[in-house]
Amino acid sequence: MRISSSSEKTFLEKVFAADGFSEHDGSLLADTLVDADLRGISSHGIQRLAWYTSMIKEHIIEPKNKVKVLKETPTSLLIDANKNMGQIASAFAMNSLIEKTKKLGISLAVIRNSNHFGTAGYYARLAAKQGLIGIALTNTRPLVVPTNATEAFLGSNTFAFTFPADPHPFVFDGATSIVSSGKIQVLAKNNKPIPGDWAVDDQRHVVSDAQKVEDNLAKVAFTEDEPGGGVLTLGGLLEQNSNYKGFGNSLVVELLTGILAQGSISADTNKPGKHDFSQFFLTINPELFGDLEDLKQSATKMFDRIRHLKHVAGTHIMIPGDREYKHYDENLKQGVVIDDKTAKELETIGKDTHVTVPKAI
Amino acid sequence: MRISSSSEKTFLEKVFAADGFSEHDGSLLADTLVDADLRGISSHGIQRLAWYTSMIKEHIIEPKNKVKVLKETPTSLLIDANKNMGQIASAFAMNSLIEKTKKLGISLAVIRNSNHFGTAGYYARLAAKQGLIGIALTNTRPLVVPTNATEAFLGSNTFAFTFPADPHPFVFDGATSIVSSGKIQVLAKNNKPIPGDWAVDDQRHVVSDAQKVEDNLAKVAFTEDEPGGGVLTLGGLLEQNSNYKGFGNSLVVELLTGILAQGSISADTNKPGKHDFSQFFLTINPELFGDLEDLKQSATKMFDRIRHLKHVAGTHIMIPGDREYKHYDENLKQGVVIDDKTAKELETIGKDTHVTVPKAI
Repeated sequence: MRISSSSEKTFLEKVFAADGFSEHDGSLLADTLVDADLRGISSHGIQRLAWYTSMIKEHIIEPKNKVKVLKETPTSLLIDANKNMGQIASAFAMNSLIEKTKKLGISLAVIRNSNHFGTAGYYARLAAKQGLIGIALTNTRPLVVPTNATEAFLGSNTFAFTFPADPHPFVFDGATSIVSSGKIQVLAKNNKPIPGDWAVDDQRHVVSDAQKVEDNLAKVAFTEDEPGGGVLTLGGLLEQNSNYKGFGNSLVVELLTGILAQGSISADTNKPGKHDFSQFFLTINPELFGDLEDLKQSATKMFDRIRHLKHVAGTHIMIPGDREYKHYDENLKQGVVIDDKTAKELETIGKDTHVTVPKAI
Repeated sequence: MRISSSSEKTFLEKVFAADGFSEHDGSLLADTLVDADLRGISSHGIQRLAWYTSMIKEHIIEPKNKVKVLKETPTSLLIDANKNMGQIASAFAMNSLIEKTKKLGISLAVIRNSNHFGTAGYYARLAAKQGLIGIALTNTRPLVVPTNATEAFLGSNTFAFTFPADPHPFVFDGATSIVSSGKIQVLAKNNKPIPGDWAVDDQRHVVSDAQKVEDNLAKVAFTEDEPGGGVLTLGGLLEQNSNYKGFGNSLVVELLTGILAQGSISADTNKPGKHDFSQFFLTINPELFGDLEDLKQSATKMFDRIRHLKHVAGTHIMIPGDREYKHYDENLKQGVVIDDKTAKELETIGKDTHVTVPKAI
């Protein structure tokens, strides 16, 4: 079914208020989920609500806790998210960095003791809106199997990068692994097979049954069981297809998040009392080097040339962000898609919090 | 054959002096090539000398030109390499950034009007030696075919990243494409087939004949012919294996080099009078966030745990940098490997410059 994004926003704000979040924080959380659904990134939209709700019940998320700044310099911030949602510390960090970068041209923040922060692209786009280059990274629960390994250790560590351009900024936003676990979740929810070499079992054999992978990942990521297997790095199954480069990219994110923030690394977020994620943000003012409009024009021209390269018949060449901005415009009119399983979860949440669930349009 | 790295260094310094480089610059150039050979990255070692020499003759490289600083702030540098070798502007940039970052915690530089700069890792390691996080990027000639495209546009844009650790820093250094074109060159030289999905023809069909690919890449990268085909992005042939992520990573490097430096983008470096590469460097002081020794220990412990994960029998799990530091120690004792074709090229260069070629050991 589809629901209007405005009814989704209202519903989420009311649920988050019932969960104990402040009006400001609840509104931000709702905005990040609605934004993801509008952009067609349903893996990071309202389908996460049931998971968020259960983490609040388990006190993994503490909705009333305030963000703490632990260390600050003119170019940097070390932040404690204080077990509240990642969105809250992350938006605070990015807004602070935008101010710092307007003064000194570049700044960065790391956050520890955080939770899931929605899409990384959301924060990188905050920088883009101000004409800045934005970078957002997070580690996650352990899901990803390094090159040659048969057990998960790395997170599906995410990398988002924005650069000013027209008609929309360049927005690259994705897991450094071959896919985010959310994509497998969505396939499992819809009873569909995995179409590529995305996940392996404890013998490092590719598995295409999405539900089987999802069941295994639930153990791998959320328990101290070590059943083996997990999601592959970008590059896939084989070393000869350079899957060690995907492994390297994941490690770069791990170093800049869990290690630099002195939080847990992904591998330890499933240990008792350890469920903290870490995040990293960086902004650069391109005007350190040239005129913003000139740089925007150069980037825009390059993207247009790429979109028109010769290509395989029946396909399109899209620049990172093209698909999401297209979905955004469409879904704003048509409403956002809610799958059946999520619809049922929303009914339960609506009953528990006494909030009316949006009707299908 | 093998030659001692010290005789390689002396030979290169004398050749670069004969080419017109200053003693300082020649010594730096020699050091970057010997360093690559010691680390087993022979594609970026002395085998490049013949290519460098021909570019000097064609005035693509101007050995006497001085680096110019076009714009400077406490956190940034915009540099004109002035058509001299990329190594010279890059080492200058990284050494300046190290000073800036010791003051303000983070700084970045972009270079335009540059040439090949050797391995990206060389500069990132300069930062690591000072206890800093280092990043080095470059664009290249057009070699890489975007997702769904049938013609090359992107460079095999390189990304190097270092983070302090023991017994050696984490050093990730590689092309954002599935492989660097140098790997295909080496297979062609040895008459071996390509073992993975690395390159495609003008119909986007995978080609495994290395010589055929190499012949095509010579046209794609060095002429204005548009024969179609090229190297694939990380993720390989298929969109369902997320090859658009490799495409995204390549574009990120293109934006931070050619676009931000206002030089040529990779796609235009084969146009007449356009052979300029652009480079990007960034350094971060991890002490903005915590004690350097503590952070080093955390990184080191994580790497050790990864090295000992369960894995497929007969394989090893290696952390980025492990292989290169092992080669370094071995080759310092045994000498560096020179292939037959390069050995012949060195004989010619030796005669032309009246420099004695190192003897095999």
